[in-house]
Amino acid sequence: MFCYVQGVITKADESGTFDIPAFVKSLATTAPGKATTFRPLSENTVADYVQSVSHLAKRLGGSKQDWAVKEVGDGNLNFVYIVTGASGSFVLKQALPYVRCVGDSWPLSLERAYFEVTALQEHGKHCPEHVPEVYHFDHPMALFAMRYLAPPHIILRKGLIAGTKYPLLAEHMSDYMARTLFNTSLLATSTTEHKAAVAKFCGNVELCRLTEQVVFTEPYMIASNNHWTTPQLDEDAKSIREDDYLKLEIASLKSKFCEKSQALIHGDLHTGSVMVTQESTQVIDPEFAFYGPMGFDIGAFLGNLALAYFSQDGHTSDNSNRDEYKEWILKVLQDTWNLFKEKFLLLWTDKSQRMGDAYPAGVYTSLETHKLAQKIYLRDLFEDTLGFAGAKMISRRIVGIAHVEDFESIENPELRSQCERRALNFAKDLLKTRSKLASIEEVIQLIRKV
Amino acid sequence: MFCYVQGVITKADESGTFDIPAFVKSLATTAPGKATTFRPLSENTVADYVQSVSHLAKRLGGSKQDWAVKEVGDGNLNFVYIVTGASGSFVLKQALPYVRCVGDSWPLSLERAYFEVTALQEHGKHCPEHVPEVYHFDHPMALFAMRYLAPPHIILRKGLIAGTKYPLLAEHMSDYMARTLFNTSLLATSTTEHKAAVAKFCGNVELCRLTEQVVFTEPYMIASNNHWTTPQLDEDAKSIREDDYLKLEIASLKSKFCEKSQALIHGDLHTGSVMVTQESTQVIDPEFAFYGPMGFDIGAFLGNLALAYFSQDGHTSDNSNRDEYKEWILKVLQDTWNLFKEKFLLLWTDKSQRMGDAYPAGVYTSLETHKLAQKIYLRDLFEDTLGFAGAKMISRRIVGIAHVEDFESIENPELRSQCERRALNFAKDLLKTRSKLASIEEVIQLIRKV
Repeated sequence: MFCYVQGVITKADESGTFDIPAFVKSLATTAPGKATTFRPLSENTVADYVQSVSHLAKRLGGSKQDWAVKEVGDGNLNFVYIVTGASGSFVLKQALPYVRCVGDSWPLSLERAYFEVTALQEHGKHCPEHVPEVYHFDHPMALFAMRYLAPPHIILRKGLIAGTKYPLLAEHMSDYMARTLFNTSLLATSTTEHKAAVAKFCGNVELCRLTEQVVFTEPYMIASNNHWTTPQLDEDAKSIREDDYLKLEIASLKSKFCEKSQALIHGDLHTGSVMVTQESTQVIDPEFAFYGPMGFDIGAFLGNLALAYFSQDGHTSDNSNRDEYKEWILKVLQDTWNLFKEKFLLLWTDKSQRMGDAYPAGVYTSLETHKLAQKIYLRDLFEDTLGFAGAKMISRRIVGIAHVEDFESIENPELRSQCERRALNFAKDLLKTRSKLASIEEVIQLIRKV
Repeated sequence: MFCYVQGVITKADESGTFDIPAFVKSLATTAPGKATTFRPLSENTVADYVQSVSHLAKRLGGSKQDWAVKEVGDGNLNFVYIVTGASGSFVLKQALPYVRCVGDSWPLSLERAYFEVTALQEHGKHCPEHVPEVYHFDHPMALFAMRYLAPPHIILRKGLIAGTKYPLLAEHMSDYMARTLFNTSLLATSTTEHKAAVAKFCGNVELCRLTEQVVFTEPYMIASNNHWTTPQLDEDAKSIREDDYLKLEIASLKSKFCEKSQALIHGDLHTGSVMVTQESTQVIDPEFAFYGPMGFDIGAFLGNLALAYFSQDGHTSDNSNRDEYKEWILKVLQDTWNLFKEKFLLLWTDKSQRMGDAYPAGVYTSLETHKLAQKIYLRDLFEDTLGFAGAKMISRRIVGIAHVEDFESIENPELRSQCERRALNFAKDLLKTRSKLASIEEVIQLIRKV
């Protein structure tokens, strides 16, 4: 689920940034495994398919007529079925060769299912507690089965809108990010493994290009995909299109997104890609995964927490006071970064952990050099994180194509636009002052000041 | 010809940085085209081979018994034959599945021939004036034919040792670097093309790992490959192994080398990879090519010019005064960067030039933003360039495995070590102060001050 879209998505062919022929061509040329026998399933045909895969059928127990199939995809890209039997259940997810909510006028590679499964498996290896297990993958069908996250699991974004606290959220998300990012970076792998994995995920270029388009390009120009709360935010949207300094920051971040293969990132780690209960946190939907800058993941998560914070004042129609909840969100934001940093460094210094090629033990012999190297690494990562957090907030979430339910669910446009403007101003500040912000506590101060 | 080696190369398996089993494994797994029918040629069998390739035979004219075959490889990695006939000639270069001067105990992927040819063709497309034309490629044989660069073409390094001036050198090298680097970067290509090309060149990982080992790792630790003018430079080599600040700079450069896929770089652009006459400049041997940071190429060339400069005082046994020649080298160094910058920016602003995805025209609309973006880009590139120049000088050229003839040809060890120490001190200064150096003129001042 890459986006929560209100209104109609149109292709940005006018702007020249979204090249449909290249997309179609790459369907034929870049696919590691061509989907020659693809056929889309429906609620009516899922059970037949499951019956044909014995280990899946066994997992459900009973026989075909006892199985319940329910389509629950949120309607943007894929079909998602919950399949339940007498003794078990799973989720079946199938990609279509186009963007589901637009139709076949916007083709999109089926190979994204392959990259999603590969990322789930790789991340799951390093962090099984927070990544659902994959049971089955059918490459030609662009379809896979994975653990069903049963209620009370809900999408984190919906929990944040409802004002629900998740006491383990920062602990779990910092764990997930530290382990997946550290273990797929050159801190833990050889350059031989790294280059092979980078090459593989270069095949996910279509999804990367979607991010390039909607995060780094369209919000900064006139594009038919853009929309915002109008007329309230007309001037704000215009000021973004005319902010040269902001565009320079965005250029530098885009170059990192396109060129820096630091780790296998989730690629779309917003609060809609996380499912939670009071005890459990599960990261789903890594179909945008590729080798990119770590800060893009951490920034996406922290930026979306900030959006949740700024939207809270619009959720008080029930006369509830959200002040305490807002403080809780800030605490999660702060703890997530601080815990991430701590855990990342623990992995780095853990003697039982396999070390990669970045800092050969024979060279970095002194404890002080190690500590200084870590300080520099984390400082760079912090700056990247804040930059990408700001970029994600501005673009996909406020003036770009893909908005978030946090704001969209605020019905009063005056109230909504006030919340959005505050989020926007914070994001701009973050992008421009990130090199001067020394700690996450200073970021929190900046949020409060808006 | 990746190196000029004096003495014996040994595998660095003790240090754990050079992993032979992984190398052997990757021979079998990463090769885009497996060399199933490889057989090494010799002076005696080259003519038979050429006869079997009609367009090559035609190029020579006459028949087999009229052709002259001469092996001229400098003995490190490959075999290089000059083949001459009645009406034409070419060079035939064949890779062996190991490092030639060590033997089959150091295996090395035959696929390097494929990457060398691919890079020659790609760079040749953008800069045919300075890249020899490829006539033929036989993938399974790891063999290709290209233009023979007839005398008076000589290796630039030898010309610099002899004290010969090449009036067009800066003009040509700046042209070569500006055009090959710009045109293979996201300034000129789409991210679709870029990711496909990055993936392809990830296959050249063995050669990348060789660079990682000899440039970024071994000079900073005790390694059996290292050698230096001893005992004169014993303390200097030790001080490098103990310089924590230097190691941090090296870590940051290594991370760029391994992670930043900015352009298709030559990968080994020292003065031994350039052949020159008074009118012609030809860049050869890009077998280390991959998508990496542009500064690695520019830094290699400028760093090797600096080495040539520092070695001049050792070449005055004929009582010639090299002062004027030294000034000429500095002028080339200065002009190369300044002309590169000028030409690179010209390509960037040329309206007839195809623009890539880095700076979408719809976003970067104002002239001032463009100018500022270019200034930032070139500033970053300058800093990378100086860093890599320093790293190349220290490592492969003075205390690492692969020395340069510039110094090796100075017979008196006292005199040689004095030259080497000056080069070493400049390189260290460059690495540590590069962020404060505002122009190439300040770099020249730093050279003079040593």
